[in-house]
Amino acid sequence: MNQWRAVSQKSVFKAKLFNVKEIVFRNKNGIEKIHHIAERNTVVSVFPLTNAYDIYLISEYRYMLGKIALEAIAGHVDKKESAIAAAKRELKEEAGISANQLEEIARIEMSGSVFKNKAHLFLAKGLEFGETDLDDDEEISVVKMPLEQAVEKVMTGEINHASSMIGILMLDKLRKEKKL
Amino acid sequence: MNQWRAVSQKSVFKAKLFNVKEIVFRNKNGIEKIHHIAERNTVVSVFPLTNAYDIYLISEYRYMLGKIALEAIAGHVDKKESAIAAAKRELKEEAGISANQLEEIARIEMSGSVFKNKAHLFLAKGLEFGETDLDDDEEISVVKMPLEQAVEKVMTGEINHASSMIGILMLDKLRKEKKL
Repeated sequence: MNQWRAVSQKSVFKAKLFNVKEIVFRNKNGIEKIHHIAERNTVVSVFPLTNAYDIYLISEYRYMLGKIALEAIAGHVDKKESAIAAAKRELKEEAGISANQLEEIARIEMSGSVFKNKAHLFLAKGLEFGETDLDDDEEISVVKMPLEQAVEKVMTGEINHASSMIGILMLDKLRKEKKL
Repeated sequence: MNQWRAVSQKSVFKAKLFNVKEIVFRNKNGIEKIHHIAERNTVVSVFPLTNAYDIYLISEYRYMLGKIALEAIAGHVDKKESAIAAAKRELKEEAGISANQLEEIARIEMSGSVFKNKAHLFLAKGLEFGETDLDDDEEISVVKMPLEQAVEKVMTGEINHASSMIGILMLDKLRKEKKL
């Protein structure tokens, strides 16, 4: 299948939210090459949708991007936590929303190489609204808009965060196919 | 805007394809916290489409994922290279395709935090076919299929690579809106 085989790997750097691994590959001629990958815990993104097809997104200042970004509600899956439990928790913490129904619509690999990170996308329906429970360092605004408008923002590039784009485009397609 | 201000940053690990940066943040009370981010060069993904709405994808064994993945043609933007030049180069190298027309359809942030990586997505039209020019360690099959079928594979999860999903869903939407 692949002439290069991994012969060893070790962790060479640990951050709070990711690890860097060094992997040694060897081919049939005994030639070796080294690759590094950075590996992050699985994340979840949640797309709460009302019966009137309004969607809730969040607006948050992203230091890494140097801008306020409009994104789906999202966060890491904690240790020993299931993806659906993380989705439920983030939905409540970030947007104060409880959902009667959480349906996984996609499991994504954010990259095929170099940066390893899985994302599980959930549709949330049957919404009830309460208080948020933000981390100390989270400054978030919840934004409600018609799904159509979110789709437009994806197509024009105003929403350009990868997993948020995927969830919104998938919901649009499911709605057009009368599956929502 | 944000009570935490970055007061210093330094590079703490360098791999061939990414760097790890350590950033110190301080709030108004003088409390500090440290974040690490991994930063990778910009990538391009290219979606070649025929007049009959067939799309070309690639099938490649991805060690990091432990599977053969069906993805868009993609690669890193080299130093001093424009994104469109990288798209043109990868299209030729990986699929042996030259395109009369390359149109940027999206600029994506693959993540809002932790893993910094931009992706530029290009639609390629006016296709001409020649020889591929693969790197020594690339083992790639080019796969042609109707755009509809690629969309179906995204919706069922068979194609689950983030930027590939986005490009395919955007092309589907543009086609439905008679913009393709």
